[in-house]
This record gives sequence, structure tokens and C-alpha cells, in this order.
Amino acid sequence: MFRNSNISSHFWKIITFLILISQFWCATPVHVEKRTTQYEIRKFRVPVDHFNLVNNKTFDLRYLYNDTFADKSDSAPIFFYTGNEGDIELFAKNTGFMWELAENLRASVIFAEHRYYGKSLPFGDNTFNDTSNLGYLSVEQVLEDYGKLIQSLLANHRRPVIAFGGSYGGMLAAWMRMKYPHIIEGALAASAPILQFNGITPCDIFSKITTSIYTSYSKNCSTNIKNSWNLFRTYFSKEDGKKELNAVFKFCDPLKQEEDLNHFLDYLNDVYENLAMANYPYENDFLSPLPANPVYQFCTLLEDLHVDKELLLAMHKAISVYTNFTTTLKCLDYKSAFDTTLGGMAWDIQTCNQLVLPMCSNTKDTMFPNAEWNFSKYSDDCYKNFKIRPELNDITFRYGGKNLKFTSNIIFSNGLLDPWSGGGVLETANNDLNVIIIPEGAHHLDLRSSNPADPPSVQAARKEEERIIKRWIRNYY
Amino acid sequence: MFRNSNISSHFWKIITFLILISQFWCATPVHVEKRTTQYEIRKFRVPVDHFNLVNNKTFDLRYLYNDTFADKSDSAPIFFYTGNEGDIELFAKNTGFMWELAENLRASVIFAEHRYYGKSLPFGDNTFNDTSNLGYLSVEQVLEDYGKLIQSLLANHRRPVIAFGGSYGGMLAAWMRMKYPHIIEGALAASAPILQFNGITPCDIFSKITTSIYTSYSKNCSTNIKNSWNLFRTYFSKEDGKKELNAVFKFCDPLKQEEDLNHFLDYLNDVYENLAMANYPYENDFLSPLPANPVYQFCTLLEDLHVDKELLLAMHKAISVYTNFTTTLKCLDYKSAFDTTLGGMAWDIQTCNQLVLPMCSNTKDTMFPNAEWNFSKYSDDCYKNFKIRPELNDITFRYGGKNLKFTSNIIFSNGLLDPWSGGGVLETANNDLNVIIIPEGAHHLDLRSSNPADPPSVQAARKEEERIIKRWIRNYY
Repeated sequence: MFRNSNISSHFWKIITFLILISQFWCATPVHVEKRTTQYEIRKFRVPVDHFNLVNNKTFDLRYLYNDTFADKSDSAPIFFYTGNEGDIELFAKNTGFMWELAENLRASVIFAEHRYYGKSLPFGDNTFNDTSNLGYLSVEQVLEDYGKLIQSLLANHRRPVIAFGGSYGGMLAAWMRMKYPHIIEGALAASAPILQFNGITPCDIFSKITTSIYTSYSKNCSTNIKNSWNLFRTYFSKEDGKKELNAVFKFCDPLKQEEDLNHFLDYLNDVYENLAMANYPYENDFLSPLPANPVYQFCTLLEDLHVDKELLLAMHKAISVYTNFTTTLKCLDYKSAFDTTLGGMAWDIQTCNQLVLPMCSNTKDTMFPNAEWNFSKYSDDCYKNFKIRPELNDITFRYGGKNLKFTSNIIFSNGLLDPWSGGGVLETANNDLNVIIIPEGAHHLDLRSSNPADPPSVQAARKEEERIIKRWIRNYY
Repeated sequence: MFRNSNISSHFWKIITFLILISQFWCATPVHVEKRTTQYEIRKFRVPVDHFNLVNNKTFDLRYLYNDTFADKSDSAPIFFYTGNEGDIELFAKNTGFMWELAENLRASVIFAEHRYYGKSLPFGDNTFNDTSNLGYLSVEQVLEDYGKLIQSLLANHRRPVIAFGGSYGGMLAAWMRMKYPHIIEGALAASAPILQFNGITPCDIFSKITTSIYTSYSKNCSTNIKNSWNLFRTYFSKEDGKKELNAVFKFCDPLKQEEDLNHFLDYLNDVYENLAMANYPYENDFLSPLPANPVYQFCTLLEDLHVDKELLLAMHKAISVYTNFTTTLKCLDYKSAFDTTLGGMAWDIQTCNQLVLPMCSNTKDTMFPNAEWNFSKYSDDCYKNFKIRPELNDITFRYGGKNLKFTSNIIFSNGLLDPWSGGGVLETANNDLNVIIIPEGAHHLDLRSSNPADPPSVQAARKEEERIIKRWIRNYY
């Protein structure tokens, strides 16, 4: 459950982050962002089970539609966002690059909602009430949803369709191009960890990259974090230490049980990972509001190597970059991070059927505590929670893992400041695939709207992406 | 129902043909055929529904296994026959080329049985008793069965896997390579009408090619057939004419009702199509035993243009080439062709879910009676029979129709004496696909064992196929 929740929270929090950061954008006078994210909300009827023609059940898939940029020649490109784990409106509002490019290339813009998220619930309010309803939550069903929606939008016209997606949405965009190349002309898969699966990528890569991001700002920064885990446990183990810990951190719910301490430490784990993912060069709102370059801000507070009470105080101050940047919060609510939202539950189910992303860490190579990857326990937890046993190798069996030489017209972009880049495609398998590395980029920064603070590498990446997408469209015509 | 049955019978009878022709092979001293078709019969457990991880039901897929040719290096090629609509042992015994090639290239040989056929029944004896059991009979489930079986056979060794298939089996081999190129290195798709679908290939192509085969032997041959349909109806319409018709044809069940006449005419329709498909250059056993070059034999009996009673007598004599070549049959059993076998039922279901192959004919361009393609009626018949509505465009949506430029390493071979060649791939979409035309070939003649009577074009085709497959294997290593 821990690993599962933890993995889930990476993805889910990035969405929450996207929601929150959008508020920042709205407060900033970036004209393009405000003007372009206008859309109609539409519905498209899809089968609950695309693979069983005896099952006649259907439901409404929600999608967003903007046709203001496209010319009326019936041949304009379609930019299609392959929605991932969340309400589709969040992605529409936080994928500014796609809107900017649509205006440049006169494309229609579609954002399709992923089944089981947002308002696209196959069984309405009962969607999550019955285990048998969960069997249709799979990558293959989602790709079919999107393919059929595209076919209906095309209405037999010849128009090039480009798929866009970030994170899990980028995985879907890439897989869509692999399996339906006759429908999708090309795909921009931003920060898509399609190799973060069993037997392909070591389970500790995520924690290693996260560690190296902190170390790159200052060696002492990651060492302090590394030393803090035992410090917290030592303080907690004694009655007066526990009191001091509670006093320093001002928890909304003071640590009492061992379980509380573990919750808090898991929360810190997520804080460090989320700070790294959202390590953008401008102020942004993540789970709490963040300064520009939040890891740098965090690490400047841990420049010296501390021990004991000094380390405790320094850690509290540093963590406040994440938990209380606005200095308006009265107490630290480490428990709310573990609330399960609707979207979060669908994601937990996906990590329990196909999307098993092995994660582990060790104190030797990383700043994190030891946490081994134990699939057997992982599987048991899934069964306990959802009556589902994960298929460890399902995705690799279907999509080929590293064996990408047979596919074409996919851009795999990855930021080196993104912990997920370790599971991304960093080497091209043939001349028809493009790998774009963004040294100064955090999690799919390239998909976001242009910003004056953008580093040169993401500006260059967007230009290259535009050049390639233009070529795909030209070749299509 | 008529069209459905009719379509089904094309495929099904070709299998029956394969069974029967195998008796011919066994009677003929062709050493290779006898020696090589030895195999173990094995079972492999597969999920009933590969796409629903909540559904835990499984069943045993049957497959045939021969490892006598392969060297023991753990890197020998695997030749994998993607079983089609029938008992897998029939295909093993009638795909001699694959065995010959396996011996030459030291490959393991696998023949996998298609679910819902032979002994691979997902719900055992109840498989066809309940409509809800029919929902897992689909191309996608079959490809998953084969993919998972291959993975288990590979057991993590690196071995090139080549798929082989004829007719619908060839379609599966091609689709397998399209969707699982990381598992299948290449595919020989022999006489695979993957373009015989709505909106791609005209529905009358099959009847036109069949007609042209007869016309190529003699113009009068197809004209006599064309004229005979009305003749039979005219004779049947009068009491003494009906008597004469029954006397000339010696039916086991004399024609009494209009329904009997229609059965007989449908039967004739199939006879002409089957004669064309099995138009092999050596004696063979189809629904009844056939001489070498049966269309030629048939047409030599219709060299003159006949009318009235003369035409009736000539037609009877010509049809006897098909119905009574051995001259041992006492009466003509036109009704038995419409008996539904177990395999036949599964095929009928497939033509009612995904494999909708539009067929039509008209008296202007063909020797066949007018028969329009009426999907609405077709769909109603499917619903009446199986409570299933066909998805007219399902296959093209998934596999791209003519849009093959994204795929590679598939040989599409087609014989020009084969009515199914009209729905085959006759032009290559890129340099990584191969099209082999066999002017003197009937339905997937190239997959059969070498025979002294083989025309040069099929000998050349097999050589070219071997050369290409060798290259795939070489490139793999």
C-alpha cells in the first residue's frame, strides 16, 4: 500500500500541482494563456468494452473542443491531447504549448478525458463501488476510446492528427502512435516514463535522480536530508524528543503513534520528489505555493552540514519552502497528502492492474531510507484493496519495452531536472524517432506555456518540437 | 443469413478441402510430408479475457510442438503458425512448406489453435450455449493468446519468431506483425484477404475473379453457367420441367419447394467458387474428390454454347466433375453443404462480429445471379442468430486497411487463380514489405508441400519466400 500510494501520489500531486500552478498563470498577465484555453465541452459515446461485441454497454466520454484556429478547408491538422489521470480541464489549462502551436499551425484542439477520471465515469456514481466495474480501466480501452473519437472527428476527411501528452499522458500518446499509426500521424510524448517498468529500468533510478538534483545544488543538502531520517526516529523514540519534534514542526496533528511518524516520513519523501518535479524557473503553486527554483531555495537553507537539534531546526526551515512559502499556514498538515480523491483512486487501480512502476531506494546511493521493491507484497496489497492482481509485464508485452525500432514519428522529450526522466526514452532507436533532452527542464516543462523565465534549453526544445511536427504535417499532405 | 453462410462456407470448405486433400497427400509417396508433420500436442493456459484483469477465468489453448529440426543453442528460429478457423491439426498436416523450411533453417515448429475452434474452447461444452460466452471470440484476443504463448516458449531466450498463416490465418499472421513487431520478426501471409473489407475492396471482386477464371478457360463456359440460373428456375416453375430437373440431377432430396431450389442454387454458387479456390495442378479431395486443374476439366465439358435441355444435361455433366469425380456417388446431396459444424459456427460468429467481408454479384459483370450487399439485412440476420450486431469497420479501424506503410517484414503472397486474391495486398506500401504474385496459384498453394506438378511460379514464390525469411533471421541475429 505504501509503495502504491506513493507512486500514485507522484502522479496525482503533479496534477494537483498543475491545478494550482494554473492559478499562478492566471495571476500573471500572459496573454496567450488566457485567450487560447477556450473550448466547448462535448461528449462522445463509447463502448464500456471495445473488445467484446456482446457487451452493449456504453458511456459518455468527455472531451474539450476548440476550432477557432483551424481553417475551414477540411484538411486542418488536429492536435489531440491523450488525457491522463485527472479531470481533462486541468490538462487543457496547463498545456499552453499545444495551444500556442495550434494557433501557429492553424490546428483544431481536442483534449480527451481518460475514462474513470473527471466526468468520464463508465458506471456513473457506481464506477468505483463494484470490483467488476474496474475491469475496463486499461490502457488498451483508453487508446480505443481516443481512436474512435478521432475517427468520428475526422468524419472521413483527410486531416493529420498529432497526439500530445505529458507524463502518463505522454505514455498514452506514444503508445497510440505505436498501435494506431494509421490514425495518429505523430506524437509528442513529454516526460513519458514508458521504460519505468519491470526488468527495463532499475527501481532505484527515480530516487537516485532525485538525490542527484539535490546534490547538484549542494552536497550538504542531500547529506542533511539523508541524516534527518534517523534524527526524526531518534527524537520520536524519546518522550522529550517527541515533544521537541512536535514543537519545532507545529503539526496540525501532533505525532503520537509510530504510524503518525511513518506518515510524516512518507510525506517528506513525497515533498522532496515533488519539489524536484516542480523545479521550475518561476514561482508556482504546487501542493503549497513554491518559489522559483524551489530545490535551490530549499538547499540554500541546508548549505551547512548540521547535526542533532541544529539539523532539526534547519530541516524545518528548509521544508517550509514547500509547506509554508506564503508564511500563512498555522500548522503542518502531513496527513492530508494521503487523502484519496476520486482521481487518485482510479490511479491506484491502474497501478494495481497494468501500470506497475517498480520503485525502491537505498541509503547507500540515495538520500532516501531503504525501501526495497517487493512485488509479492505489492500484489497482495492490490488484492486486498481492489481484488485485483497486477500483471507485472503486461505493458512491456504489449508495447515492446525498449524495442522501439519498429515505430516512428514520436518525440520523446525529457528534462534532466525531472526524476521521471530515468524511465524515459533517452536514446533514439531509429531515424524516425526523436529524443529531445532539456537539461534545465523539470517534469514536462516543454508542454507548458512560454514564459519569460524559461531557460534556453526549453525554448530550443519547443522550437525543435515545432519543426518536427511541421514536418510530419507537411509529409502527411 | 444467405450471405453469411455463403461467406462462411468459402472459408470453411477450404478447410474441409485441406482435410480431404491431405488424404491425397497421404496416398501419394511424398516423403517429406509424411516425415515432418510429427508433433507433440501441448496445452497453454490463457485468460479468457486478456483485456480485463478483474476477470480471472482461464482456459487451455492447444498447440502443436516440434523441436526436432532446431539446434540446441537457445537461439534457433521459431516458426509459428497463427491458427485459423479449424482444428489446428488440419493446418499442421496441410502447411508442408513450413515444415520443409523448418528443416532447412533448423527452426522449431509451432501450430497454435485458434480459440473457439478444435479443442481450444474457452467454456468447454458450453462455449456456444450462451451468447455471453461469445464475447471473447475476437481477433484481438487471439493475437494476445499467440503473443503470450510465444513469450512462454521463448522463456527469455533471444530467438527470431516468424509467423505463418494462410487465408484468415494469413490475416492473423500479418496483424500479429503489425501489432506485436517486438515479438514477431516477420510474417508470411499467404492468400490473406486483409483488404476484403467495407470501403476498401468492391464487394463484387470475388465473383468477378471467379468468373474470369472460368472465362479464361473458355468464354462459353462462364456464359453457360450464367444462362443456367434462369434455366433451372424455368424448369422448376413447370411441373414436367421440375420432374426432368430432378431426373437429370438425381438429387438425394428431390427439389420440391422453392426453398429446395434456392438451396441447390446456393450450393452451385459455392461449387463454382470452391472449384476455383482448389484449382490446383494435381488431383485433390475437396468436398468431393477433384481432378487436377478442376476448372479446366469443368470447362472442357461446357465448350459449346448450349440452350434448354442440352444446357441442362451439359451442366449436370460438368458439375459432376465436382460432385461425382469418382463416379461412386448415387445421388447429389446439395443440402449437406449447409450443415453447421462446430468450427463452422465459430466462423459464422466471427463474420457477425468483426469479420464482415462484403460480398455481392451482378449478372452484368459476372456469371452469378444478382446478389446485392445489404449490410442492414446482414446485421439483422446476425442479431437473429447470435444476438450480436457486427461492427462493419472494426478491423479497418484497428489494422489500418490499405494504410500499410507503417509496417514491415510481411510477405503478402497471392495466387491469381484464387478468388480471394482480390482482397489481398497486391502492391507493396514500402520497401520493407514484400508482395509475391503467383500467376498459376490457387488459394495459398505456396504454403503446401512441394509437389512435382507445382507450376514454376509457385516454386519461384517459395524460393523467394525462403530468401526473405532467411534475411529476416539473419538481420535478427
